[in-house]
Amino acid sequence: MVIVMDHNATEEQIETVVQRLEDAGYRAHLSRGVERTIIGAIGDETQLGDAGIELLPGVANVIPIMQPYKLASRVMREEGTVITIGDVEIGGDTVQVMAGPCAVESKEQLFEVAEKIKENGARILRGGAYKPRTSPYSFQGLAEKGLQLLAETREKYGLLIVTEVMDPRTLPLVAEYADIIQIGTRNMQNFYLLREVGRYNKPVLLKRGLAATMEEWLMAAEYILSEGNPNVILCERGIRTFETYTRNTLDLSAVPIIKHFSHLPVIVDPSHGIGKFRFVPPMAVAAVAAGADGVMLEVHPNPLEALCDGAQSLTPKKFAKTMKQMAAVAQAVGRKF
Amino acid sequence: MVIVMDHNATEEQIETVVQRLEDAGYRAHLSRGVERTIIGAIGDETQLGDAGIELLPGVANVIPIMQPYKLASRVMREEGTVITIGDVEIGGDTVQVMAGPCAVESKEQLFEVAEKIKENGARILRGGAYKPRTSPYSFQGLAEKGLQLLAETREKYGLLIVTEVMDPRTLPLVAEYADIIQIGTRNMQNFYLLREVGRYNKPVLLKRGLAATMEEWLMAAEYILSEGNPNVILCERGIRTFETYTRNTLDLSAVPIIKHFSHLPVIVDPSHGIGKFRFVPPMAVAAVAAGADGVMLEVHPNPLEALCDGAQSLTPKKFAKTMKQMAAVAQAVGRKF
Amino acid sequence: MVIVMDHNATEEQIETVVQRLEDAGYRAHLSRGVERTIIGAIGDETQLGDAGIELLPGVANVIPIMQPYKLASRVMREEGTVITIGDVEIGGDTVQVMAGPCAVESKEQLFEVAEKIKENGARILRGGAYKPRTSPYSFQGLAEKGLQLLAETREKYGLLIVTEVMDPRTLPLVAEYADIIQIGTRNMQNFYLLREVGRYNKPVLLKRGLAATMEEWLMAAEYILSEGNPNVILCERGIRTFETYTRNTLDLSAVPIIKHFSHLPVIVDPSHGIGKFRFVPPMAVAAVAAGADGVMLEVHPNPLEALCDGAQSLTPKKFAKTMKQMAAVAQAVGRKF
Amino acid sequence: MVIVMDHNATEEQIETVVQRLEDAGYRAHLSRGVERTIIGAIGDETQLGDAGIELLPGVANVIPIMQPYKLASRVMREEGTVITIGDVEIGGDTVQVMAGPCAVESKEQLFEVAEKIKENGARILRGGAYKPRTSPYSFQGLAEKGLQLLAETREKYGLLIVTEVMDPRTLPLVAEYADIIQIGTRNMQNFYLLREVGRYNKPVLLKRGLAATMEEWLMAAEYILSEGNPNVILCERGIRTFETYTRNTLDLSAVPIIKHFSHLPVIVDPSHGIGKFRFVPPMAVAAVAAGADGVMLEVHPNPLEALCDGAQSLTPKKFAKTMKQMAAVAQAVGRKF
Repeated sequence: MVIVMDHNATEEQIETVVQRLEDAGYRAHLSRGVERTIIGAIGDETQLGDAGIELLPGVANVIPIMQPYKLASRVMREEGTVITIGDVEIGGDTVQVMAGPCAVESKEQLFEVAEKIKENGARILRGGAYKPRTSPYSFQGLAEKGLQLLAETREKYGLLIVTEVMDPRTLPLVAEYADIIQIGTRNMQNFYLLREVGRYNKPVLLKRGLAATMEEWLMAAEYILSEGNPNVILCERGIRTFETYTRNTLDLSAVPIIKHFSHLPVIVDPSHGIGKFRFVPPMAVAAVAAGADGVMLEVHPNPLEALCDGAQSLTPKKFAKTMKQMAAVAQAVGRKF
Repeated sequence: MVIVMDHNATEEQIETVVQRLEDAGYRAHLSRGVERTIIGAIGDETQLGDAGIELLPGVANVIPIMQPYKLASRVMREEGTVITIGDVEIGGDTVQVMAGPCAVESKEQLFEVAEKIKENGARILRGGAYKPRTSPYSFQGLAEKGLQLLAETREKYGLLIVTEVMDPRTLPLVAEYADIIQIGTRNMQNFYLLREVGRYNKPVLLKRGLAATMEEWLMAAEYILSEGNPNVILCERGIRTFETYTRNTLDLSAVPIIKHFSHLPVIVDPSHGIGKFRFVPPMAVAAVAAGADGVMLEVHPNPLEALCDGAQSLTPKKFAKTMKQMAAVAQAVGRKF
Repeated sequence: MVIVMDHNATEEQIETVVQRLEDAGYRAHLSRGVERTIIGAIGDETQLGDAGIELLPGVANVIPIMQPYKLASRVMREEGTVITIGDVEIGGDTVQVMAGPCAVESKEQLFEVAEKIKENGARILRGGAYKPRTSPYSFQGLAEKGLQLLAETREKYGLLIVTEVMDPRTLPLVAEYADIIQIGTRNMQNFYLLREVGRYNKPVLLKRGLAATMEEWLMAAEYILSEGNPNVILCERGIRTFETYTRNTLDLSAVPIIKHFSHLPVIVDPSHGIGKFRFVPPMAVAAVAAGADGVMLEVHPNPLEALCDGAQSLTPKKFAKTMKQMAAVAQAVGRKF
Repeated sequence: MVIVMDHNATEEQIETVVQRLEDAGYRAHLSRGVERTIIGAIGDETQLGDAGIELLPGVANVIPIMQPYKLASRVMREEGTVITIGDVEIGGDTVQVMAGPCAVESKEQLFEVAEKIKENGARILRGGAYKPRTSPYSFQGLAEKGLQLLAETREKYGLLIVTEVMDPRTLPLVAEYADIIQIGTRNMQNFYLLREVGRYNKPVLLKRGLAATMEEWLMAAEYILSEGNPNVILCERGIRTFETYTRNTLDLSAVPIIKHFSHLPVIVDPSHGIGKFRFVPPMAVAAVAAGADGVMLEVHPNPLEALCDGAQSLTPKKFAKTMKQMAAVAQAVGRKF
């Protein structure tokens, strides 16, 4: 980190900072400028901490310069991580599609969706058995029954299953059923839950928090990685801004930026990112163009009757059309689909 | 809710919307304007839902008009809720102060802080035994040992204890020790945790999420209230904006606004809201002026050595001075202190 | 607009609202619900205003339901506007590229860039003669000399010129030289400047304000259109969010959304939207995939020596490569390039 | 500034950065850490610029460490600036109140307001003759006629006048009538207008931009100061966030923070900051508690009939009550009123 001293800091104050840095295990490096003295603190900030430097008299500012994540960083691992589940690879050449309803509602619903998404080339079925809802009065999911229906559908259609866990107490159950365990946006900083999924071997799909910086998102991944589970997939799903025409603002720039700083695969969920079905297809296509390793899409046989998020769900027909466009763009940017 | 039809919606489309609303249990009320037809849907949106109306052809926009919270609303209860714990009232005439360190570190630390805050008139001791930290490599709290130290301190100094719970699995333990159970900002939408604390009788201090609208915050309170626990205290602690000089932007306007829409007590945490100790005192004083029912302050005997959030902690001396200013302003706005 | 009354509003209060609406020229339409009465005000809000209704006793909320823009709306004009300048069409089948340096620096610089962008298929040269800079100590542009250099370059290379105007006093001069007059992000709500360019016949490229909602952006276009100039091109260039890795967050969802609500062409400027050259190419490509009618790119023969925004400028070589990728994606989504 | 090199930067790359810094006029100072080399660039960043360093191979990050403003900084001037206009001081012990209607509408309106605000102790009358309105169809102000009415009111009631200028072309006129020239939030980065008012001797009230960081706000002040006008008053008026219950989020923390970094007086406009009259009084009072040098309030004899911003205007009666509360709090925090 770099410590900027006040323009009128005394020699004694500078000396105190240097002493304190050295006591904490840093090497201190002084640069005396015309207007200010700055002090470089050399050492591992992640381990040594900030030593309370900001509170010392004469200190104007303390600027961290190292990335606080290590295992998630490309510094640690130059090639991109490819996560293999059966014969499906996430993070490789192929852009993967995860599709399905917001919530598992019934066997008929799931079977119908599964058939349609499979027929159009998707390999992974999404569907929530436990649903985080803003209102306690909204449908909260079928719980274990929902997990069983997902398993049945997998059995019948040969798709992989991604489903959300919200509570460390139900994690063993979810892990038993899911191929990929999803951590939702509201739990991105549920640190106990992150640690727990870090102790499983299953791939984890980690959604970006509603208002998480990319650094915080990577730090959340670091929680999982630091427990020993290397299989983290990051999922951009829109951030909160001042815009009111849409639920969220889909931040596609997160794709190339995260891929620059981290080796982890990045996928995009335009359904939540926009929140209105009619704008989902162009953003799904744009996500592929931006370099996403996958796209997650809400598809419902009858969005009008959906128990959750109907307004952002595609019909199977619109989904089929979107798949074709994504495939064309994937090819244009040199990816398989 | 109100449905705005497209300017060129057909009679048939309007009819379909009306039919669907009535099927869902609403009464529909048409207003034909010069440019548009709008349809008022009369009924309880909370229960009847949106009926997928947004997806029907010819619909331009669906605008909810009812507040989605009920139990948290002043419509439900006109007088403000006063929460009484022993002889301490929160939400009454007296502005309450909750003070103490970010994290419980040792008995000496707690005893020293407790003595100082008591001597200056605070009645409630804050201190974290379980700490939500952005980095997995940071100090995570003393866990049960920390709770025991808090209990010992309460015993000795006669203060109430507020401490955070992060995991439903440790809730029974935390509830055993705490007088007020804190739900942190990152767990404001941890719905399972909300439901669980809703099943206890203990007062719950619910911090506003980093990027939560006031409506979402009240909906989180609604989760707790709907399980039967009426003792919810809301705590504004800064929201995320584009500003980079501070960790967060303290939103004091939340105080009068929440008090207008809800009967629940509202307190303010300027320590997290600003993140730099030197700006905490004026914002603590301003919180009292804005009508807060309480102020939560981080106080550490030696912020330089704090294991967590030293940069935003007041020394006992600065705390004493801030208490005097808050008392003066409380009196000026007609509150006790 | 819709007026939601308090749950305990009296008959007299309701009557007063109705009376006031009618006095203002609205027709009022009552819907009495179980919990609330709502009143639909039928009439042209744009002209009749809000009549101060929000201030009447018993009124809980006033919700506007009409879009406040008219001329910019697709309701007014169903087919998209195509702006033709010479043989270049903006808003038609072809995705147009505007490229060039942030600031005009010298004839050599401009000629070199012009040659390279032309050779790679761009038809429009961008370059600032008047530069809005955050600091008064930064390079502010060559002013009229810069305009002359742009004109010379147009002469020699047969490219169209887009350049920014910042001050109504220099507008006549800028309009004399430019083919497209740019209004920068910081002037999106400089209403006098908007009115002035509205009185010219020249196409106007209107950048989205740093923190402008899409509605405000369309209202800014409305200022220009309402003065009689129908040739407005909207340009998304990143909005301000809490993210700190990038200068701005490029909002590609603005492309399909604006095109849904408005008939005006929409282009994207990923250079300002991201602010770091290495992330510009994927976002340029994604912009095409999202349906943009054009892309604006900063290109400099030697970004290292650029007097402005070097960090976000592409070298001619990187530009050439990006053009190829954009062309491939344009084809994949059915556009010409 | 500090340059952080890539973890695998070569010696040659480091050497190139050092060379380039020295060529630009900096002294370079190397610190070789375990994982990274960092380079301190010593010299005046404001003048020397960034030298394109970010683009050099091997550079991971460039971090500016100096404040970019000079004249606005407390480093330049330790004691606070006090601006004296007649016998009114802004920035001194006394908290000043600027009150009046959003827009000048008529002589009767102005006289009535002037009488009421004077009678309650305010010394400065606000009122817009030129109004920045989101919609071209809204009332745009009385222009010169409005200025004349303000002057007449000043004559009769002995109040100072603050009024907004929007266009450099009308500045001479506005400057002739106004005691304090207001730059509105939408023009905070209208750099030509800033330079122009910098050439006058009149005090300038500079509102914070809707989404301006505090640093950008101080840089806008720097534009005015750098032209020779030292009389700048900063006015916080709410920033844009995701919250939808209010038009803006009033950032009271800006008061102590700006006063820490700058010597300029800071006032607060809660009327625009909240946008709803009923929440204005507590925020006005909180502004005084936070240390504001003044408060600006919209007051209208009949908000219901106001041509602009009626919803956020206080009646004279509510204004009188708010004045009393502000006076009490001013006294409690040791200020005169």
